[in-house]
Amino acid sequence: MVSGSTTTPSGKLRMGMVGGGPGAFIGAVHRICLAMDREFELVAGAFSSDAQKSRQTGSELGLDPARVYGTWTEMLDREAKLPADRRIHAVSIVTPNHVHFGPAKLALEKGFHVVCDKPLTISVEEAEELEKLVAKSKLQFCVTHNYTGYPMVREARNLVQGGHLGEIRKVYVEYLQGWLSDKLEATGQKQAEWRTDPKRSGPVGGMGDIGTHAANLVEHVTGSRIDSLFAVLKTWVAGRPLDDDGMVLFKLKNGATGMLAASQVCVGRENGLMIRVFGAKGGLAWQQEQPNDLTVYWKDRAPEVRRPGNGWLHTDTKTLQRVPPGHPEGYLEAFANLYHAFGRAIRGTKDIPDAFPSVSDGLSGMRFLRACLKSAKEGSWVAP
Amino acid sequence: MVSGSTTTPSGKLRMGMVGGGPGAFIGAVHRICLAMDREFELVAGAFSSDAQKSRQTGSELGLDPARVYGTWTEMLDREAKLPADRRIHAVSIVTPNHVHFGPAKLALEKGFHVVCDKPLTISVEEAEELEKLVAKSKLQFCVTHNYTGYPMVREARNLVQGGHLGEIRKVYVEYLQGWLSDKLEATGQKQAEWRTDPKRSGPVGGMGDIGTHAANLVEHVTGSRIDSLFAVLKTWVAGRPLDDDGMVLFKLKNGATGMLAASQVCVGRENGLMIRVFGAKGGLAWQQEQPNDLTVYWKDRAPEVRRPGNGWLHTDTKTLQRVPPGHPEGYLEAFANLYHAFGRAIRGTKDIPDAFPSVSDGLSGMRFLRACLKSAKEGSWVAP
Amino acid sequence: MVSGSTTTPSGKLRMGMVGGGPGAFIGAVHRICLAMDREFELVAGAFSSDAQKSRQTGSELGLDPARVYGTWTEMLDREAKLPADRRIHAVSIVTPNHVHFGPAKLALEKGFHVVCDKPLTISVEEAEELEKLVAKSKLQFCVTHNYTGYPMVREARNLVQGGHLGEIRKVYVEYLQGWLSDKLEATGQKQAEWRTDPKRSGPVGGMGDIGTHAANLVEHVTGSRIDSLFAVLKTWVAGRPLDDDGMVLFKLKNGATGMLAASQVCVGRENGLMIRVFGAKGGLAWQQEQPNDLTVYWKDRAPEVRRPGNGWLHTDTKTLQRVPPGHPEGYLEAFANLYHAFGRAIRGTKDIPDAFPSVSDGLSGMRFLRACLKSAKEGSWVAP
Amino acid sequence: MVSGSTTTPSGKLRMGMVGGGPGAFIGAVHRICLAMDREFELVAGAFSSDAQKSRQTGSELGLDPARVYGTWTEMLDREAKLPADRRIHAVSIVTPNHVHFGPAKLALEKGFHVVCDKPLTISVEEAEELEKLVAKSKLQFCVTHNYTGYPMVREARNLVQGGHLGEIRKVYVEYLQGWLSDKLEATGQKQAEWRTDPKRSGPVGGMGDIGTHAANLVEHVTGSRIDSLFAVLKTWVAGRPLDDDGMVLFKLKNGATGMLAASQVCVGRENGLMIRVFGAKGGLAWQQEQPNDLTVYWKDRAPEVRRPGNGWLHTDTKTLQRVPPGHPEGYLEAFANLYHAFGRAIRGTKDIPDAFPSVSDGLSGMRFLRACLKSAKEGSWVAP
Repeated sequence: MVSGSTTTPSGKLRMGMVGGGPGAFIGAVHRICLAMDREFELVAGAFSSDAQKSRQTGSELGLDPARVYGTWTEMLDREAKLPADRRIHAVSIVTPNHVHFGPAKLALEKGFHVVCDKPLTISVEEAEELEKLVAKSKLQFCVTHNYTGYPMVREARNLVQGGHLGEIRKVYVEYLQGWLSDKLEATGQKQAEWRTDPKRSGPVGGMGDIGTHAANLVEHVTGSRIDSLFAVLKTWVAGRPLDDDGMVLFKLKNGATGMLAASQVCVGRENGLMIRVFGAKGGLAWQQEQPNDLTVYWKDRAPEVRRPGNGWLHTDTKTLQRVPPGHPEGYLEAFANLYHAFGRAIRGTKDIPDAFPSVSDGLSGMRFLRACLKSAKEGSWVAP
Repeated sequence: MVSGSTTTPSGKLRMGMVGGGPGAFIGAVHRICLAMDREFELVAGAFSSDAQKSRQTGSELGLDPARVYGTWTEMLDREAKLPADRRIHAVSIVTPNHVHFGPAKLALEKGFHVVCDKPLTISVEEAEELEKLVAKSKLQFCVTHNYTGYPMVREARNLVQGGHLGEIRKVYVEYLQGWLSDKLEATGQKQAEWRTDPKRSGPVGGMGDIGTHAANLVEHVTGSRIDSLFAVLKTWVAGRPLDDDGMVLFKLKNGATGMLAASQVCVGRENGLMIRVFGAKGGLAWQQEQPNDLTVYWKDRAPEVRRPGNGWLHTDTKTLQRVPPGHPEGYLEAFANLYHAFGRAIRGTKDIPDAFPSVSDGLSGMRFLRACLKSAKEGSWVAP
Repeated sequence: MVSGSTTTPSGKLRMGMVGGGPGAFIGAVHRICLAMDREFELVAGAFSSDAQKSRQTGSELGLDPARVYGTWTEMLDREAKLPADRRIHAVSIVTPNHVHFGPAKLALEKGFHVVCDKPLTISVEEAEELEKLVAKSKLQFCVTHNYTGYPMVREARNLVQGGHLGEIRKVYVEYLQGWLSDKLEATGQKQAEWRTDPKRSGPVGGMGDIGTHAANLVEHVTGSRIDSLFAVLKTWVAGRPLDDDGMVLFKLKNGATGMLAASQVCVGRENGLMIRVFGAKGGLAWQQEQPNDLTVYWKDRAPEVRRPGNGWLHTDTKTLQRVPPGHPEGYLEAFANLYHAFGRAIRGTKDIPDAFPSVSDGLSGMRFLRACLKSAKEGSWVAP
Repeated sequence: MVSGSTTTPSGKLRMGMVGGGPGAFIGAVHRICLAMDREFELVAGAFSSDAQKSRQTGSELGLDPARVYGTWTEMLDREAKLPADRRIHAVSIVTPNHVHFGPAKLALEKGFHVVCDKPLTISVEEAEELEKLVAKSKLQFCVTHNYTGYPMVREARNLVQGGHLGEIRKVYVEYLQGWLSDKLEATGQKQAEWRTDPKRSGPVGGMGDIGTHAANLVEHVTGSRIDSLFAVLKTWVAGRPLDDDGMVLFKLKNGATGMLAASQVCVGRENGLMIRVFGAKGGLAWQQEQPNDLTVYWKDRAPEVRRPGNGWLHTDTKTLQRVPPGHPEGYLEAFANLYHAFGRAIRGTKDIPDAFPSVSDGLSGMRFLRACLKSAKEGSWVAP
């Protein structure tokens, strides 16, 4: 049971949101996903730094106007003062990168559990501070590296970490998109605007936006952190102040080596996150755009294609699906798996390992980005 | 605005459910999907013919115990007597086939909109009666031939009905599953039990369970009804009283001819619904297990692979997606698209054509099944 | 060793060709394939009914002009009179269908082994006569149902006939092309001309051209003949005197049932031969356009994708590949596998079963076509 | 016409082979491919450094024993003294890497055209010497970077170099195999033995064996040489003296940047050569194991899948196929395309550009390898 605060009449945990106002993409995703498994109910929000816009979104969502706030400080202050059986249990932070640290820190200080979008912050120092705050508290903290929520990613992780592929030698990971091939930010497209603006995105562009997902996937699947890396960052679109393309060679602490590509100028590629892992006894390949197929290679028999819902999958994998085999679940369901696990954690349910990415995973991502910047600048190998 | 009854504080329509108690599969699907787009809120239910089980499910869902009923007649009677600003707007019927007609008829008589699982009933006569009731009312009626909710099925329909493929000549459709290759119903598996029981499933087995989806997909995509058919039905698993395998040749009213395969004994196939359509100028292919790829063939250029979220898709197609290109949506999202459209229809929103399958589509499915049974028995071509 | 006639200095068997003059497609294929494995050398030919064209082709091929003949009767007569160490061992008949029977019969009578294109003849009676002639002789006769030469088709056959899939229940086979979607024969295209001309093609069009391949594939893989069938034949392109589209339901002698589609009006489809077989314990799927992938389904584990060249394949399968795994072999190599086996048979090498399609397989194809015509006309089930 | 020497009676050019004795893999490939299009006839050979083995292979191939030689020097000396209408036109060198330079040099000096396997030599100096020799002569020299012979690689090249994809930004190439995941060379497997032996393979292992193919493919498709690179080479299998895994970042002279992976320890991967190119207006992807599909991405419309044999392909592409669309050609046909073009060049036929890889392409490969070694040693960017 949730300590110190009862749930809603329907047993749901109460969520407040920071960000996700008009025109937002990821805010709407979070709202669908937090509700999908009846784990959470959105009851409060500071949806925009513009109070008028915040109210508009709150109204569209049917929220009690009294709990639609003009700023996140206001929300956190006032919610903290509500009685335990009314106030929110957790906040979901879905703002541009530069507005992650502030609300996350305050939320923790006020005693709220936190879901925070990635990259965790815009500096390693901020991320380290959050990690310390979490460690001191009894609070749950989830960074939405959402691709870890796919059943077949979990199956991959179980194959690797269960030793089925033998000692891991090679990891190839890539995240290729094409949507920033032109100067989309000059057209007023909001998603492009803040992602290419150093003030809001931080000192990295595409490597922070999608490269951290790729790096996180490597560490999640292998269970090993990046030990050193060599990075090249580049900006292809004239006048764009941040990188839109990166290439990274890396070594993992377990001894494996690998390559990471993250680019937003690959025309025609939609959301091409792919990981391949090869060990001394077997290998695997997974692509986000066909997320229900996991190809597994073996030394002495034909490759197999594992798909969700089948009885022979790892027990942990089977916890991540809602419908029978052949009924494809996708991006939203994988994302919702993180919220579901986060909710269970708040309630104190014992769970499968690493059911959602932790503040430490988020910090690892920030260290990865710092190392990329340093390596790209110095032309040398760097330890994160 | 919804006539005669206000929505919930959050603007949602109120839904009551018939069926979907412990162990049900499709009931849980309906619950996720009705809530996904904040269109509906489940507030009442008669979840099982066993009142105790109904209460258990209601409690798990956090419903007001006063609105968890022991029978669907009780639910419909008592909800109808609630004030307009409290009573349900619609019912969702997710029971085995033999309990579709009763609650659907009563719901319509009581003035409730209806969502009903497929096949619509267990006889053509019942389906015709429902069609008449709907015609006399101003009520919305949705039969959950859910595969029509996929964006790429909608794109296929727009390609065909917009004439881009020319006069349609050939339609190949199939729905292959393997889960009933053995006598699963003998193990106590609930889904298998009722689907292979003539009392609950009606006079057809697999052809009703999945063949009607295939037939509906043909009619939805081509916009043409089946004009005549030649069917072979067979039972492969000893002791099973209903067909688990069927083969159908058919002619459409538009002159096209085609083949339909529906089998539940194809070992290893999960949920293999596939449709291919060829006209005088082009063709297309779509598979449910990779639902975000639509292959389009042309006479004078290379085939293309259309995927959701891209700007060049048909305007109607673009209404059916929640996230950007490359973020795969699946079975639940497609299913939710029907609920979303159903909700909009209740509110009187003008919408894209055939945004959800109608009672007439459900009736067409029942006539298809009747014709299959007759043809298989007589060994001759039959008009539905 | 070859009885009664020595081979060439390089140990090759001597081949004469009937047909394959200017503009021919399949003649050139045969020439590449007979030479690929150094089994045969083309030394003689009657390449066209036009002696001038025959000489032109012979000259282009660098043949001794003395062995380029004006007619196939002349070739067979004169070659038969050459000494054993010079005359041809075998003939390859690559003419339109109506010129299969004559040269095949005469060749057998003169003591030559025969390779003959499909369909074997233009009537069942002719095919039966050839079968009798072969039975009386010690000669080898190969009908080039070339798709049986693919390694993964052989693997499929071994899986089925080795009982690994259990009792076979369902067979789905299709052969979809689009090249005759318009009246190509009116443009002077030679391949289209004779295939749509009843005088040269015989009483069936597409069903003979490609449907027999599909039927042969079913019988080859399952090892069971078609026991009865129900066929619909149709002509979509106005003014074409033969069928360009067919649909067949069938039952095999082993009890399995299936569907066969053969169409040449599926715009954009190139050469879409596909077979899927499902038994009580497993299933398989193979597509000619990606011929090196064989998907195998199992009841209790993930599907696997078998590919040529790997050690774990069936021993017979491994005889059909020339290069290591991952080096794709295709249509020509599969075709050449038939010639290789035919050559080994002439030399008396003991071989894998059914290494090439026999005259009886060709006769079975003719009976299949006769049954299709009768069923389509009468609207009833017919035994071939 | 071929200068100074007539062809065979059948119009074929006469070929002598160096290497390709018992147990060889690539020699047999060359023999099939040189004969496939009736361009060449193998008439002489020095198949092994063991004269007895050379005779054995010559006998199996049915060659005149007088033209089966004990050493390649003997072959080249004695063939050069034969009359013009009998002696070979060209030699095909299919030995391990350390026996490329010697026979290639002597063949050029004796006036023979040369086909030579890759990598061209075992040092840059040798390759430069060969380039100079070729420049001084009128002889043709083909290095069998055979993957350039695929029709869809040619289509890719035409798309890029025709400017259809805009300014090229990114190139991702990889060549992943798994066959050397264990110490196969310790089992006596010949292919593994020489490839992992510095005396026969030269100073690089896998990067020379397959990495040069990948580098060549980049340069062939883009028409731009590698300008600088950063490489990491590694040996995973204990006791193996050469690299079995490499990762390279590179910049092209045209400004594009890219990543190259070449590994022979990716368990389960057969022959995974893949290239992807992205420009400012479009992109493409090609995989050797499905060589007949070329995916082309566009900014403003759906991706297309181009396949051989279709009328809308580039004129050059259409010269590289033998059979109609949907009849897959593979590795051997692509390899034969190089021989076909080489033969045409000898005859003086004007041809499509870069119809086969030149000695300069081979030299570029050697410089690539030298740079990889230097970069891997020094940990810095190196210009080839």
